[in-house]
Amino acid sequence: MTVDSSLPLSKDLDYHLSAEALRRKESPLKGAFKYYGKPDLVFLGGGLPQPTYFPWNKITTESPAPPFENGIGYKPQDASEMTISEITKHTPSHLEGIDIPLSRSLQYGNTNGQPELIKFLKEHTTMVHPMQYQDWDLIVNTGNTQGWNDLLRNFCDKGDTILTEEYTFASSLEAANAQAITTFPVKMDSFGIIPSQLDAVLTNWIGKKPKLLYTIPTGQNPTGSSLSNERRQEIYKIACKHDILIVEDEPYYFLQMEEYTKDVNARSGKSIHNHEEFVKAMVKSFLSLDTEGRVLRLDSCSKTLAPGTRVGWITAKASFIERFTRIQEVSSQNCSGFSQSIVGGTLNRWGQTGYLDWLIKLRAEYTHKRDVTVDSIYKHFPTELMEFVPPVAGMFFAFHIDATKHPKFESEFKGDVLAVEKAIYERAAEYGSYMIPGSWFKTVGQTEPPQQVAPEKQTHLFFRGTYAATPLDEIIVGIERFGKAIKDEFGIKN
Amino acid sequence: MTVDSSLPLSKDLDYHLSAEALRRKESPLKGAFKYYGKPDLVFLGGGLPQPTYFPWNKITTESPAPPFENGIGYKPQDASEMTISEITKHTPSHLEGIDIPLSRSLQYGNTNGQPELIKFLKEHTTMVHPMQYQDWDLIVNTGNTQGWNDLLRNFCDKGDTILTEEYTFASSLEAANAQAITTFPVKMDSFGIIPSQLDAVLTNWIGKKPKLLYTIPTGQNPTGSSLSNERRQEIYKIACKHDILIVEDEPYYFLQMEEYTKDVNARSGKSIHNHEEFVKAMVKSFLSLDTEGRVLRLDSCSKTLAPGTRVGWITAKASFIERFTRIQEVSSQNCSGFSQSIVGGTLNRWGQTGYLDWLIKLRAEYTHKRDVTVDSIYKHFPTELMEFVPPVAGMFFAFHIDATKHPKFESEFKGDVLAVEKAIYERAAEYGSYMIPGSWFKTVGQTEPPQQVAPEKQTHLFFRGTYAATPLDEIIVGIERFGKAIKDEFGIKN
Repeated sequence: MTVDSSLPLSKDLDYHLSAEALRRKESPLKGAFKYYGKPDLVFLGGGLPQPTYFPWNKITTESPAPPFENGIGYKPQDASEMTISEITKHTPSHLEGIDIPLSRSLQYGNTNGQPELIKFLKEHTTMVHPMQYQDWDLIVNTGNTQGWNDLLRNFCDKGDTILTEEYTFASSLEAANAQAITTFPVKMDSFGIIPSQLDAVLTNWIGKKPKLLYTIPTGQNPTGSSLSNERRQEIYKIACKHDILIVEDEPYYFLQMEEYTKDVNARSGKSIHNHEEFVKAMVKSFLSLDTEGRVLRLDSCSKTLAPGTRVGWITAKASFIERFTRIQEVSSQNCSGFSQSIVGGTLNRWGQTGYLDWLIKLRAEYTHKRDVTVDSIYKHFPTELMEFVPPVAGMFFAFHIDATKHPKFESEFKGDVLAVEKAIYERAAEYGSYMIPGSWFKTVGQTEPPQQVAPEKQTHLFFRGTYAATPLDEIIVGIERFGKAIKDEFGIKN
Repeated sequence: MTVDSSLPLSKDLDYHLSAEALRRKESPLKGAFKYYGKPDLVFLGGGLPQPTYFPWNKITTESPAPPFENGIGYKPQDASEMTISEITKHTPSHLEGIDIPLSRSLQYGNTNGQPELIKFLKEHTTMVHPMQYQDWDLIVNTGNTQGWNDLLRNFCDKGDTILTEEYTFASSLEAANAQAITTFPVKMDSFGIIPSQLDAVLTNWIGKKPKLLYTIPTGQNPTGSSLSNERRQEIYKIACKHDILIVEDEPYYFLQMEEYTKDVNARSGKSIHNHEEFVKAMVKSFLSLDTEGRVLRLDSCSKTLAPGTRVGWITAKASFIERFTRIQEVSSQNCSGFSQSIVGGTLNRWGQTGYLDWLIKLRAEYTHKRDVTVDSIYKHFPTELMEFVPPVAGMFFAFHIDATKHPKFESEFKGDVLAVEKAIYERAAEYGSYMIPGSWFKTVGQTEPPQQVAPEKQTHLFFRGTYAATPLDEIIVGIERFGKAIKDEFGIKN
């Protein structure tokens, strides 16, 4: 890939690095590799097993073939409907640049990822997130969970604070907790982080400022909310103003959908028909808004291909990416060679447009599942008690219930919103439907900065549901049961 | 696997855990999974993509088949000589317990590894390392580099000290350095750590004692040395006496060989002929000596199968392994599903004895390479200047040269051993042969405890070579050139 030198360079932001990141040195042994492959030099330097000893001579994978006319769940019946990747130890010349040979992918080396995979991902990045500065790079890792954990090591010292959405992915909070990093919540509504609240928190902050904002901007987990282009721009400006980094954790980015409409006939007309339309319909990433180099983007194959690929990547300014190389050298080293050969081989056979075809069909699947789910919610839930915004991205939906409307809110529950949440949770499970209580995702700062006033009195609870894992007919049953549980709990007849 | 309840339990050693390890909590979301799969419960809890959307319906791999009569480098010519693994989304009933279906391996879950792979590795462990206590466990990870990094997080706090071999794997030192952990060297000779030196260091230690000893006991990197059974027993006793943990990093364990003999005719008679003989010929692991639960063993497929599998595992007492589960949940999650399905599928088809066949042939290959290399060293090197013990395991050899015998040691080099090392290094590279200077592997404690006397005056330097990566004919050329470089440097004619 050629660098677009017409773009400006990013700002120097390396002073944001942690003490640990600054301690990391390149291994002295790397110096040896500059000799490796020199003509007429016998290299007795590196402890690499000979690839002839790797016991896998060939891997053949079978996948559906673009443009996936029968949808992504369709299982091809014969080779004519398949993309077949035959990956060998030594790539034949007509597949060079397409396949990652097993003699290389199963060997040590290429910490940042195999070149054929990196090339594909960089081209993809350029198509979807046009960059505003020239010195960016990406590193392939084992997924966003690893990426986030490494990122905390790279930028946060023990005792630092980071900002997160008020409700967020519990595992991301736990990673910070283990590193003794304080997580501080930023207020959100049904459309994600409220920019003015973010600005207020930072403006009124006393003491060492938070290092970064961690956000899941699209199809947020657990609330299902998505930030609009306008909010993203505002939030980016606030981050620049207060000099904090933005980490966008975007596993659900390509699960963007049409807005929900109750009008069933209007739905089919709204679907995406071509690649250009698809890319244009995407909400702007923080990465693409970034002129300074303060955004780190975490991407993953987990939701677009499969979680067990354990393939993800981080995109950011090159001097930051270099610090991730140093971490990976002494931890995961790189993601599995099998994963890279198979994912790389399949994606390179599909091509950029074939991959977009896959994503377009994925969007169609999730849109349909979302539609059926939301139809069902409107049919079976007591909407008069609820705040509910149908999701426009991701796997999750959340509905907020006004606990104060429970007839026994003050008597039996003594005004405790969480007790009402628990009562609904248990009744729904008893009725045979399971969703996760929103309180399980709450960001609780270990130390509240002194300027924070007492939190408003909580009135609402929420549940996180998902239409991802369950077939449609079961979802409908599950929603109906959950709706009945709420109604019975609140004494609503219908 | 059934626990052998006739064995005693390990000691409670959890007070060795780090502050970070103690901070780690199980994700509250794990509580949800106890509901998953309950009859007639619609589970809308987990954000798992449907396996029908995973774009890989089948993977077929081709490997050599046991007993590998033509050696492990032989490429099978047709299916009759191959182990062919066809791994599908849903395993047919006759392959249950053998194959890890893609619908599961490519999904989230099974942080500790897929059950079919764990079962194989536990059976293998029981065969090779008969355990002395009952509450042991293992966790599959992405290899020993990750394992070591996680282990440091689990047991060491910033500022702690660990003991390592005087010369050791640079990347392991760098992992500790980044975490602000001091590494302190224990003196070794051509047969590895000197037990009395370890005891002396610990007995004379002032201040907070080192947490653990990190050792590569077999085919040590970089010295090629291997600890005898006797030294292992002594070292284990010393660890118990001073209450430190032992971490055995054992990627080269199965690259054990016959002792080198100059008598070419005697060589073939010494090779291993059956499984029982092979297992019996293995040096005792620290794990198998451990009665208390203070040994953590790091195993890897990197040298026995291929580095790019990124499959390794840690074996230790169960309460320690549980802390590794917590780390993996918020970092790598688990090793690649492709890797687990392919490695598990191949190993389970080979069976325990087929895998031993593979290891026996691997041993034969490395023994032959070692023999040719050592023959060549004795032929071309100025042995009168050297200390050299032919390795009995691993990929590496080291030869120690008495720098004081350099005619210009005091004049040109001002008595600086490292300057002589550099002169040899550069001359050898110029002659077309490359090995790595031993000084690059030196463990230098960031803080020397006050009781340490000044180090003895250094007289010897060494180089690390390897016969792993290079074909035999090239090795011979490389050794000859390196020998000439030393001789010319020292003004020796022959």
